[in-house]
Amino acid sequence: MNVSFFRELLDSIVDRSRALTALTLGNGANDDAVELARQLLSRRGESSGAILAQQILNAYRRLDQAGKLAFFNMLSTDFMPDTNAVLQAAERFSKSPSSSTLRALSTALDSPRQEFFRRLNFAPGGTQAIVRMREDLLDLLKEHPDLRAVDDDIVHLFGSWFNRGFLVLRRIDWSTPADILEKIIQYEAVHEINGWDDLKRRLDPHDRRCYAFFHPSLVDDPLIFVEVALVDDVPGSIDGLITAEAAASTEAPRTAVFYSISNCQKGLAGISFGNFLIKQVVTDLAREVPSLRTFVTLSPVPGFRAWLDGERRRESSEVLSPSEIATLAVLDEEGWHTDPERLKLLKPLLCELAAHYFLREKRANGQPLDPVARFHLGNGARLERINWPGDLSPRGIAQAAGLMVNYLYDPKDIEKNHEAYAEHGRVVASPSVVKLSKVNRSKRLPALAS
Amino acid sequence: MNVSFFRELLDSIVDRSRALTALTLGNGANDDAVELARQLLSRRGESSGAILAQQILNAYRRLDQAGKLAFFNMLSTDFMPDTNAVLQAAERFSKSPSSSTLRALSTALDSPRQEFFRRLNFAPGGTQAIVRMREDLLDLLKEHPDLRAVDDDIVHLFGSWFNRGFLVLRRIDWSTPADILEKIIQYEAVHEINGWDDLKRRLDPHDRRCYAFFHPSLVDDPLIFVEVALVDDVPGSIDGLITAEAAASTEAPRTAVFYSISNCQKGLAGISFGNFLIKQVVTDLAREVPSLRTFVTLSPVPGFRAWLDGERRRESSEVLSPSEIATLAVLDEEGWHTDPERLKLLKPLLCELAAHYFLREKRANGQPLDPVARFHLGNGARLERINWPGDLSPRGIAQAAGLMVNYLYDPKDIEKNHEAYAEHGRVVASPSVVKLSKVNRSKRLPALAS
Amino acid sequence: MNVSFFRELLDSIVDRSRALTALTLGNGANDDAVELARQLLSRRGESSGAILAQQILNAYRRLDQAGKLAFFNMLSTDFMPDTNAVLQAAERFSKSPSSSTLRALSTALDSPRQEFFRRLNFAPGGTQAIVRMREDLLDLLKEHPDLRAVDDDIVHLFGSWFNRGFLVLRRIDWSTPADILEKIIQYEAVHEINGWDDLKRRLDPHDRRCYAFFHPSLVDDPLIFVEVALVDDVPGSIDGLITAEAAASTEAPRTAVFYSISNCQKGLAGISFGNFLIKQVVTDLAREVPSLRTFVTLSPVPGFRAWLDGERRRESSEVLSPSEIATLAVLDEEGWHTDPERLKLLKPLLCELAAHYFLREKRANGQPLDPVARFHLGNGARLERINWPGDLSPRGIAQAAGLMVNYLYDPKDIEKNHEAYAEHGRVVASPSVVKLSKVNRSKRLPALAS
Amino acid sequence: MNVSFFRELLDSIVDRSRALTALTLGNGANDDAVELARQLLSRRGESSGAILAQQILNAYRRLDQAGKLAFFNMLSTDFMPDTNAVLQAAERFSKSPSSSTLRALSTALDSPRQEFFRRLNFAPGGTQAIVRMREDLLDLLKEHPDLRAVDDDIVHLFGSWFNRGFLVLRRIDWSTPADILEKIIQYEAVHEINGWDDLKRRLDPHDRRCYAFFHPSLVDDPLIFVEVALVDDVPGSIDGLITAEAAASTEAPRTAVFYSISNCQKGLAGISFGNFLIKQVVTDLAREVPSLRTFVTLSPVPGFRAWLDGERRRESSEVLSPSEIATLAVLDEEGWHTDPERLKLLKPLLCELAAHYFLREKRANGQPLDPVARFHLGNGARLERINWPGDLSPRGIAQAAGLMVNYLYDPKDIEKNHEAYAEHGRVVASPSVVKLSKVNRSKRLPALAS
Repeated sequence: MNVSFFRELLDSIVDRSRALTALTLGNGANDDAVELARQLLSRRGESSGAILAQQILNAYRRLDQAGKLAFFNMLSTDFMPDTNAVLQAAERFSKSPSSSTLRALSTALDSPRQEFFRRLNFAPGGTQAIVRMREDLLDLLKEHPDLRAVDDDIVHLFGSWFNRGFLVLRRIDWSTPADILEKIIQYEAVHEINGWDDLKRRLDPHDRRCYAFFHPSLVDDPLIFVEVALVDDVPGSIDGLITAEAAASTEAPRTAVFYSISNCQKGLAGISFGNFLIKQVVTDLAREVPSLRTFVTLSPVPGFRAWLDGERRRESSEVLSPSEIATLAVLDEEGWHTDPERLKLLKPLLCELAAHYFLREKRANGQPLDPVARFHLGNGARLERINWPGDLSPRGIAQAAGLMVNYLYDPKDIEKNHEAYAEHGRVVASPSVVKLSKVNRSKRLPALAS
Repeated sequence: MNVSFFRELLDSIVDRSRALTALTLGNGANDDAVELARQLLSRRGESSGAILAQQILNAYRRLDQAGKLAFFNMLSTDFMPDTNAVLQAAERFSKSPSSSTLRALSTALDSPRQEFFRRLNFAPGGTQAIVRMREDLLDLLKEHPDLRAVDDDIVHLFGSWFNRGFLVLRRIDWSTPADILEKIIQYEAVHEINGWDDLKRRLDPHDRRCYAFFHPSLVDDPLIFVEVALVDDVPGSIDGLITAEAAASTEAPRTAVFYSISNCQKGLAGISFGNFLIKQVVTDLAREVPSLRTFVTLSPVPGFRAWLDGERRRESSEVLSPSEIATLAVLDEEGWHTDPERLKLLKPLLCELAAHYFLREKRANGQPLDPVARFHLGNGARLERINWPGDLSPRGIAQAAGLMVNYLYDPKDIEKNHEAYAEHGRVVASPSVVKLSKVNRSKRLPALAS
Repeated sequence: MNVSFFRELLDSIVDRSRALTALTLGNGANDDAVELARQLLSRRGESSGAILAQQILNAYRRLDQAGKLAFFNMLSTDFMPDTNAVLQAAERFSKSPSSSTLRALSTALDSPRQEFFRRLNFAPGGTQAIVRMREDLLDLLKEHPDLRAVDDDIVHLFGSWFNRGFLVLRRIDWSTPADILEKIIQYEAVHEINGWDDLKRRLDPHDRRCYAFFHPSLVDDPLIFVEVALVDDVPGSIDGLITAEAAASTEAPRTAVFYSISNCQKGLAGISFGNFLIKQVVTDLAREVPSLRTFVTLSPVPGFRAWLDGERRRESSEVLSPSEIATLAVLDEEGWHTDPERLKLLKPLLCELAAHYFLREKRANGQPLDPVARFHLGNGARLERINWPGDLSPRGIAQAAGLMVNYLYDPKDIEKNHEAYAEHGRVVASPSVVKLSKVNRSKRLPALAS
Repeated sequence: MNVSFFRELLDSIVDRSRALTALTLGNGANDDAVELARQLLSRRGESSGAILAQQILNAYRRLDQAGKLAFFNMLSTDFMPDTNAVLQAAERFSKSPSSSTLRALSTALDSPRQEFFRRLNFAPGGTQAIVRMREDLLDLLKEHPDLRAVDDDIVHLFGSWFNRGFLVLRRIDWSTPADILEKIIQYEAVHEINGWDDLKRRLDPHDRRCYAFFHPSLVDDPLIFVEVALVDDVPGSIDGLITAEAAASTEAPRTAVFYSISNCQKGLAGISFGNFLIKQVVTDLAREVPSLRTFVTLSPVPGFRAWLDGERRRESSEVLSPSEIATLAVLDEEGWHTDPERLKLLKPLLCELAAHYFLREKRANGQPLDPVARFHLGNGARLERINWPGDLSPRGIAQAAGLMVNYLYDPKDIEKNHEAYAEHGRVVASPSVVKLSKVNRSKRLPALAS
């Protein structure tokens, strides 16, 4: 594999994209995105696809909300498969199921929209434009659920285009171009980055790492990134972790903490990268820093407070006793989170409740209530430790009454954990968490299977 | 768009591929490609997709023909959509066609094979391996047409993966890495490259150009390339064009001749790049060399001799008169192609017959007999000139009785020509070719519509 | 010339430098910079130069001020040419001057120090280390002028190493790595950059440019950079130029303003790059932005206030009349610079005095008093316009009583201007400045030759 | 250190060089290289150095031999230091030697030629042009020794410009650009490369390596390169080493054989890189291929046959006995080198004579007769083994009567060996070679000190 030729080769993509930027819109002869879209799927599209695609992207950019809605409506109604053809093919298949009738049915079902988006991608910068287009579509979907079929087709394409095999992992550091770093600041969704000094601290090669996935056709824009701290021991609190001066002891850090994972592209919602990112970073870090023994997250618990407050308000909670509800009233008091007395009072109860929340509270489909838990457990991590107080920032209190947890990524257990979770809905947790959850807070709850 | 960051970013792909090459096959614990393939689509595949994918690729590489056939058979029979589910969905849709029943039908039809290949692509080097896999599959298809559904699924994926938006045009010159150049020598399919000196002449920046399409995930391997000569006038003969010393007059060449286009990847058969390649090169060359006025091919006519010999052997040809058949007997004589007398004798007749062949001889579907003609006319070129003798090499004589033709790419007519051809099957030709074809060689033929 | 190979090639330099950073100091056996320096010039240095050089750089880094002084003293006294040998060679040359005795004299004069520094440069990162070393030396020189011969030798080497032919011009923009941008903020010496937002505005591609010279062996560190604004008309005031929102009219800017030039490396003091930088940027900008007609600076006048205050204090100024001195007393008043009345009062007088200052006030060697004037006039620019008030910042008032000027770089006059200045000491100025200077403020001054 | 920024940075050098190539010579107003050279050192040169430099290079390229001679003569006579000034400075220094009179003398001796070449280097592509210029000069020197002072000045500059700290080591392999590889074929000076297939074999990553030094300003052209074979045991014969199919046993090769080192630039004759190259490659290989234990050359002995034939012809050789002379007559017979009998007869005698040649035959200055021996011994290698027959090619027979030797580079002994050689002229040899040399072939020779 030839590095330098490859590099030059890819510069061409960049040049092509630049050409787009420089391109003046020309005569503007046709500014009607809907009409152009029709042409793209017609004969003209076969011979002049790239030019038409570019005109559509230009025209689309000038559309207002109503224009965009009309555009997507057209895609939804006019570019769908031909119902009659599908009906006939379906009937033929029903009558005599064979590989050839199956094939015919499949062909009849092929959505012209997918071909439309494939051709739209011929334009320089097309991929990025389609991702932005889907951002708009997701907004419109809330009020126009009938556009969902359009989204389905885009998602199907994105599943192929953003295949993990095409993603590129890159370390982000202080020698990364400023425009990329600016986006890291802007996209950070978990623990806000307060300006360039804060960012520089988070990229300090001594004890920090940051990695992002990129796609060759979206080169300026990371897809997802993760921030890592290299430390000695599994941390229980975000406070101090982010702002900490590097400790001398981290010359041979034993623990890598994933303390923030942020998706960057709204237009790629539902296309999952986080699982791959974490595992790749674990692999790379293990090689780069051989002293590392433990790979662990320090994660928020965004659903905890809502659940807790629900139980507190419930007329007859099966989880909380009246005295416990009384204790939890402290959470409504001013200044409790800076008062050592009240913190001490709350701690044992909240830790038990957290363990209960993770291990026993489930959604209808048997999965845990907490979305972050679903993500990490689905990846094969195990719930390692309950930390309280872990995040006493206003946001940490509002979302999780101060709670944070660690999920452990142990390469040798990931597959087994994933299977236990995916097959049997089992929340894999460390013995200490399991023990916490077994405090018999409610006789009415079934015993935990573990 | 940031060039240097982009470059580094893409190096990561290279590194990942290298990692694969360096990878020893490990314990070889599981060497059963079929069993591994099943696991890739199971729970394990969700959490350990990249590792399983790599193991499958390793195992596949060690399969013999029988093993490969078994592997594809398994994909064909076990990884197809669930017929019952499709039947039910088809019936539900037939009863009440709606967007939701359509969606359900579409989901039921989704082939697990596509998901299989998507996951296979998680492995470093996966894309290249799947292209190679399809090479094997195409070989097997000849005797095992039942594997066609597997190929359909790969083609569907390749249509997304090798979208023109992801292809990169690169100029090939004497500073291109030797391993790439070696492949150019090896892949040249039209006019064989006789070693490195011949290649160097074909890359001489003074009056030659060579361009290739690459894909970010197949970086060592061009997908398709075209060779161009910059000359003064439209050439009629390949002899001399390739070996010519550069003429001084080409300081401001007026004509770019596309004299060879070669596909490189058998595994990408049917995924069309040539159309895009020619148009992109026309655009780029027009900018780089402003003196160029004419973009034209010098093309072989691979079907001409077979058609001609058929007519000669036919009992009562509607095309050839007995005296013409007598004249054409010269083609069977030893040494005719070096004898000025006989060449002179044959010329007018063969030129007329060539024009007839292109404009009046059609396949059942109304398209011209000649495959190269179908390609260029389908791209919107016009048949510009009949050249005889154009190629008196053994191959040129065997395929085309010495005939070559030029197709003209005139940017302002491409769309119109394409439409005339695609919509009405009309072979767009220059007035001189049309005139040649009007020689009334057979009263029985219908008049040409033009 | 092969771009991609070149790129890979140079990566090797980077890798070598990185290797240095990663290098642990090993046995640390010898930590004595002075002793190691002796060895570097001995037999050992011939075979183990790179290793010894590296050890010296490591040892030097740990020296305190006294240690550094001792180190340079040793270089000064021990590594000088052999006086006796020089004496003998000088006498031989005196007796019989010939090419061979000249050669022998030249050899005798060759300073071992130069060989020492050449060998020191064998170490990875050596060039940068020697530049830092000279920073220390320049500090020491103030109190230890006897070290000047050491500096002479370094300057001689730097003259070869930092030859303009080896310098690389690079545009600095928002996609430049953050670590380089951080240095731009830090090195800006004329108009301070207030953080990343200010920097981003100064790099806005719409109407700003920034260029820097780099050296292949000092790749992280710019040598010198210039900031440019693209505007319509020659500006007279820095206020507003830097903070200005981009005006719509700059779609086709006519004027490029060089408003800040900063040297970055103290250790390269006296090695001149500014002349080359400005001319290269003029050339490149003229090509990139064809609408540009005028290349001009907006420059500070660091010597004006000191000269003016001197004249004001002088018992009988030949330049200032008593009434003028009275008017200038306004400069000592609080708040004059925000008072339109007083500004109006001062303006004509200060403009005349400025013209006088530039055109008539000279140093002993006939050159103008003002150092910035010497730089630009020496480059072949002409003094184009007096601007008052041009810079009413505290610094602008303290240095130049608010004065700024424009120097014009007109490619077709540069050579002629340079010659007039270098040959005859003539300050080339625009007619309007000349006219201002001719106001007969002092009968005693000789008439201006122009 | 920032890799990608660095890469872009250096592309600028390439672009600048390309600009030169593209540059039309303009009005050709001044085509007189000598006159332009004068201007370059004048006032004009200060302000328009880069342009003048480029014009000189263009004009020089068009000079014929006589023109070049005139050009160098002018440099020799007109651009030398001012003799009177040197005389005065020399006298002043003689009278009162001080740092200030030394400095003045040194300044007086500064050759304007050096400044001339420094300014010539301002032109894009200047460095390469000056290297080519010196090629011409070295040719002329043979008949015009008076030009030596010009060469001295160039050599002095090259010593700074081509400092090892600025050189870049690059591996040459099959993915290296073809234009570079073509130069490797062309520059190979020891064992001719017979076309691209031979080259490919010599770059086979399985058991071959090739490394070259490059300079940032001479990027298309290697300075020196070395070819290495990775094998099991120290080889004694070149035959087979080069053409050998890779043996399976080289999975963990124990021995790296440097079998060819070629300088590439005649214009850099006398600027030594080989020493650095070998040591760097030893270091890099030791890291890359940990199984390597021995680093050894397989070297020609270019002076052996001439010495041997001299002794044979000498009336009363002190080295050869009459019977030995008789035996050696076999060397004049047809076909001896393919006849096992005669080879067997010659072997013991030639091996002894070879050991004698290396250890006892010295030049006037005490160094060994053989130039290759002087190079490797001077680098700190030891003479490891005498191989006969080692090279029975026509060249090997003509130069060395079939002899080849190995020099051993043992990192831990290099410094010591170098010292022994440089300080005491001792040829460090392995015990077996020493033993061979002790065969008492001449009672009159003094005993070897070892």
